[in-house]
Amino acid sequence: MAEKKYCIGADIGGTTVKLGLFDTEGTVLEKWEIPSRTENEGAAILPDLAASIRAKLEERKLNPEEVAGVGVGVPGPVSEEGVVPHTANLGWGYKEVTRELSMMTGLPCKAGNDANVAALGEMWMGGAKGYKNVLLLTLGTGVGGGIVVNGRILTGAHGAGGEIGHIHVEDGVEDSCGCGNHGCLEQFASATGIVRICREILENSEEPSLLREGEVTAKAVFDAVKQGDALAMRTAERFGKYLGTACAVMASILDPDVIVIGGGVSKAGEVLLEYVRKYYGPVVYKAARETPFVLATLGNDAGIYGCAKLILD
Amino acid sequence: MAEKKYCIGADIGGTTVKLGLFDTEGTVLEKWEIPSRTENEGAAILPDLAASIRAKLEERKLNPEEVAGVGVGVPGPVSEEGVVPHTANLGWGYKEVTRELSMMTGLPCKAGNDANVAALGEMWMGGAKGYKNVLLLTLGTGVGGGIVVNGRILTGAHGAGGEIGHIHVEDGVEDSCGCGNHGCLEQFASATGIVRICREILENSEEPSLLREGEVTAKAVFDAVKQGDALAMRTAERFGKYLGTACAVMASILDPDVIVIGGGVSKAGEVLLEYVRKYYGPVVYKAARETPFVLATLGNDAGIYGCAKLILD
Repeated sequence: MAEKKYCIGADIGGTTVKLGLFDTEGTVLEKWEIPSRTENEGAAILPDLAASIRAKLEERKLNPEEVAGVGVGVPGPVSEEGVVPHTANLGWGYKEVTRELSMMTGLPCKAGNDANVAALGEMWMGGAKGYKNVLLLTLGTGVGGGIVVNGRILTGAHGAGGEIGHIHVEDGVEDSCGCGNHGCLEQFASATGIVRICREILENSEEPSLLREGEVTAKAVFDAVKQGDALAMRTAERFGKYLGTACAVMASILDPDVIVIGGGVSKAGEVLLEYVRKYYGPVVYKAARETPFVLATLGNDAGIYGCAKLILD
Repeated sequence: MAEKKYCIGADIGGTTVKLGLFDTEGTVLEKWEIPSRTENEGAAILPDLAASIRAKLEERKLNPEEVAGVGVGVPGPVSEEGVVPHTANLGWGYKEVTRELSMMTGLPCKAGNDANVAALGEMWMGGAKGYKNVLLLTLGTGVGGGIVVNGRILTGAHGAGGEIGHIHVEDGVEDSCGCGNHGCLEQFASATGIVRICREILENSEEPSLLREGEVTAKAVFDAVKQGDALAMRTAERFGKYLGTACAVMASILDPDVIVIGGGVSKAGEVLLEYVRKYYGPVVYKAARETPFVLATLGNDAGIYGCAKLILD
């Protein structure tokens, strides 16, 4: 059998499939994208993906025997066996992703939830490099996340492990979360959540604020924090309390080596981590008190890195 | 090499070491105990244990080659490598438990935290039999617990994985928890926590209650609940809200197959689970909404079962 020199990561999103060709040491050799054709229940997505992979191997004259396989990230729950029950964003119903793709490419395939796979990517070559127990939070439009335990993704019984955005953090919330519940972390710690907190603070105060002009966005809030804006800082305190307490709860039971914060909101940088740490320290179990918080470093590429790593494990 | 027919579990507590000789199918062949001699920094504990194991094998004329090894439960954090940094209950400082015991017995050894190991025991032969992803809560004087992910204990970076009792559930609590924090789950969901809730309810009400006579204990509270006592039921509601919400938070990120409730408090039985489920369902992430709650079935033997299973993995 030929030595395995390469691996492929394919992160399937609702609009595009991001692909990466890697060597087995984690160096990305090439990145490319293809559209996700979600019409007709997403029937073309896997055939398109398989064709693109075959074309790339031919173009680069790579021997398929030297390719360890293809890891796939899916925006929904994925079982340990690589089966998805239903993936709304892609139009998929029940689908045996790894089995189908493996038959179409002739390569070994594995699949994981996209947020979980991103955690694996950050562990392999990103902010959590060198660690084996990782808690990743992705703060974007929603709050996603992934948990890696002893180097392996925590998949859970229904492929829903690491659904960090939907832990209950507040009673008596009237608005409902995208998941149907009320008072989820996502309602306070996502980009939309921060805007929600900020609007409420602006409405209940007469104080001047930089945020009274222009559009209120998560970025605008943290920019204003950096300029010492009082209402922005009050917003950041509330955000920090929700996120810091939630991280403490998770770290108390998971005891991770490191907590990684990624997603668009994390572009605010160190200042964001300060607000989170402030509320984390006093309530976390002592063993995890010094656990470092770091920023994710792979951005939108975390998925393809994690997919590639998945197939190497 | 001889076929492995037997395995030994040794659950080290502050007063006694519980031992069990098992066949590899999980049938316990014999259980016995030796005292834990914690004086002199617990120096005699491992030699006593090794001597007891050797004596048992000789007594039963078992060939050590047919013994898969010894699994050990320790009342404190244990690393993946079987090292403990410090175990106050036993008088131990830094100790390479598995290495020492392996040299003294001539058998392979593994070690785990006692609560984590109990979760593994319930998975092997108890309330969670047949499952691979288990969340165990042990409600006794304190609240302990263990998490099993895909058949393996979640140990964590500092051996503190599964410290369920110390997740933060309430702000502004004046009393401090045994861990030094304020507002831990243990302060509300342990036997002492239930008494604490009940006393507060009794003091702030003039209503008659069965609990105004005799000693207030967790057992007395649930006995009174079964008789329809209003203040006891109010206590159970508060207990259920804290524990049910905490279980929901944990299940949302862990997505277990089953949640097992053990420890002395769990002797209250199904009525206790009803109060927990009531507050669990509305706030847990949808994928885990139907996750069953079951009572632990191995009682104080969960530890020796889990220790024995540890060495088979």
